[in-house]
Amino acid sequence: MNYHDVPLLFSESFHSADMLYLTGFWVHDPFLAFKIGSQSYGLLSALERSRAQKESHLNHVFSLEEWLIEVSQKIGHRAELADVIAALQEHFKIESFCLPRDFPAWLLLGLQKRKIKFKLAEGTLFPEQNQKQPPSIQELRKANDLVRLCFKHVEAILEESEITHDQTLTYRNEILTSEFVRKEIEALCLKHEALGDCIVAGGDQACDPHCKGSGPLKAQEWIVVDIFPRLKTTGYHGDMTRTFMKGTPTEAQKALYEAVKLAQQEALSTLKAGVPFKAPHEAAQKTFEQLGYQTDIKANPPIGFIHSTGHGLGLALHEPISLSHRSEGLLEMGMVVTVEPGLYYPGLGGVRIEDVALITAKGYEIL
Amino acid sequence: MNYHDVPLLFSESFHSADMLYLTGFWVHDPFLAFKIGSQSYGLLSALERSRAQKESHLNHVFSLEEWLIEVSQKIGHRAELADVIAALQEHFKIESFCLPRDFPAWLLLGLQKRKIKFKLAEGTLFPEQNQKQPPSIQELRKANDLVRLCFKHVEAILEESEITHDQTLTYRNEILTSEFVRKEIEALCLKHEALGDCIVAGGDQACDPHCKGSGPLKAQEWIVVDIFPRLKTTGYHGDMTRTFMKGTPTEAQKALYEAVKLAQQEALSTLKAGVPFKAPHEAAQKTFEQLGYQTDIKANPPIGFIHSTGHGLGLALHEPISLSHRSEGLLEMGMVVTVEPGLYYPGLGGVRIEDVALITAKGYEIL
Repeated sequence: MNYHDVPLLFSESFHSADMLYLTGFWVHDPFLAFKIGSQSYGLLSALERSRAQKESHLNHVFSLEEWLIEVSQKIGHRAELADVIAALQEHFKIESFCLPRDFPAWLLLGLQKRKIKFKLAEGTLFPEQNQKQPPSIQELRKANDLVRLCFKHVEAILEESEITHDQTLTYRNEILTSEFVRKEIEALCLKHEALGDCIVAGGDQACDPHCKGSGPLKAQEWIVVDIFPRLKTTGYHGDMTRTFMKGTPTEAQKALYEAVKLAQQEALSTLKAGVPFKAPHEAAQKTFEQLGYQTDIKANPPIGFIHSTGHGLGLALHEPISLSHRSEGLLEMGMVVTVEPGLYYPGLGGVRIEDVALITAKGYEIL
Repeated sequence: MNYHDVPLLFSESFHSADMLYLTGFWVHDPFLAFKIGSQSYGLLSALERSRAQKESHLNHVFSLEEWLIEVSQKIGHRAELADVIAALQEHFKIESFCLPRDFPAWLLLGLQKRKIKFKLAEGTLFPEQNQKQPPSIQELRKANDLVRLCFKHVEAILEESEITHDQTLTYRNEILTSEFVRKEIEALCLKHEALGDCIVAGGDQACDPHCKGSGPLKAQEWIVVDIFPRLKTTGYHGDMTRTFMKGTPTEAQKALYEAVKLAQQEALSTLKAGVPFKAPHEAAQKTFEQLGYQTDIKANPPIGFIHSTGHGLGLALHEPISLSHRSEGLLEMGMVVTVEPGLYYPGLGGVRIEDVALITAKGYEIL
């Protein structure tokens, strides 16, 4: 047995960033893949095999059906997928596998039953994914440029909107709604070959950080616009947030915005290779505390700074890296993280500002 | 201990149909949920808790942070999620859990370490999902009506297209491409509050059943158009396929189409409650064999009828039910399945025809 901790996956690739990273192949149904040294292998059914040869960057595409038949003959009864894995282990002289943390239970139990050795990956299955290379950085930049384009469009809509007597906004003689703005963003993303998921939430709706927003948008309220498109070709994500207002903020609203802006600057200023994941979060927390913004996560609804400061961004919208107080680990060159502090107080409103930072030796670069 | 086989999930709800079914709550990050009798419970972080109370149909929304703190105090060290599950087990007098087949490995190992009893679900975690109720059927109908609308639009584009000297199609003076038609479909779906995934593949591209298609579309070639949108509100899917041609098919092309049409009719005619899953597949296979269409899944590329006849459709695009020769089980009233035989021969082309059928006592109804 020559190979240890061979990465082994069974998943589809729309949801599993590990699988998309390994194969570059968009497949809706789970399939088996593994990597020995620099060589990647996939077992595909007749439905996907020929396409895998053309579209994936797998080095070796095997026929699932042939392996199932061959192993069935060898073991004398209908082979299950775990039997095929046992046969692959023998064939390739694999001592042990390394599995992604979300490896499916049913197949894990099959490995255990056959006493196939494995360990679980600590974070992502392919840690080299953490240090983004120029082609990936280029894609992340492209996705975030698209977000900027969307913000310009949202700004233009708000600019052109009018304020009615009860503060409701109208745009081209129609009531302006969260749904309308979201659809505009999604259409713009579609035009640019991206899947355009987003949040457009005003007033108290914005105090639920992941509320997508619904109904009429109003003047004199903060409107959180969080846009996180995925490029359809390569699967990389953009993720930025801006908080808008039509009208003039009150002093309290203005202070809320300035606090979040400052917290983001303080968090960003901590970023460089070698710094703990929790440093930017603590910087943001400290800023809010010093400015007197209280957080109470036990309150109903929770108020203040009620989420982490950021997350890794790449083929997954939320890569395993988390900039939070519970996180262990250090930032490394080439990591890409969001920095997105926010404050949420029903009655006053919600503000979040989010940018994407590439970690460099001396600091960071906004993508 | 009073409760046995309590469904327990840890997943997000965009990908996990089980989680969406249990909670009706769209969340990008995994969370813990379970169901005791008719009561559903979710453990949500401060980020999602308040929104869960408003948007989910969970009966009980617990604070993840409070449970983590409480259990940590009880066990004397920082609690992991599996410790919280052990505490929930004790609190609710749960004898054993039932886990979805894709339950994540890391948490399964945590349960095993704590000797928490569990079994895996056979198919979907909530088998009642298999028998679609009127509200779900209504959503599936709506999604498939949207697909029909898209087909009409594709037909109109092809109708208006012109054939150039080398058979390339042009539409409004531009070369007509797969990408253009896909984007038109996606835009139409977006307009109707759906995520519009689709395939538009002509010629030999259509011989890879899941090739999305790229480049110019041509006359005198079969063009497979497979549209599978997801309604953004409820998460239900549509899934239908039509195969188009601009121009006049040759005798061989026409025969290919007629064979698939007949195979679909034969497959559909087997459908009713009590019939084995494999019956419609065998009916389609038999039709192709009798008409002399050979299948070779070992060929490169595989040719003939190289996939199953259909799959369950609902909150998941591919529900666990499979109409294939390896499937065990019987159709039941209220099940919703696709029926989509196809034939694929590079040089001649690919044809697939797909409809969605609701199983009734006496037969089926096309949705």
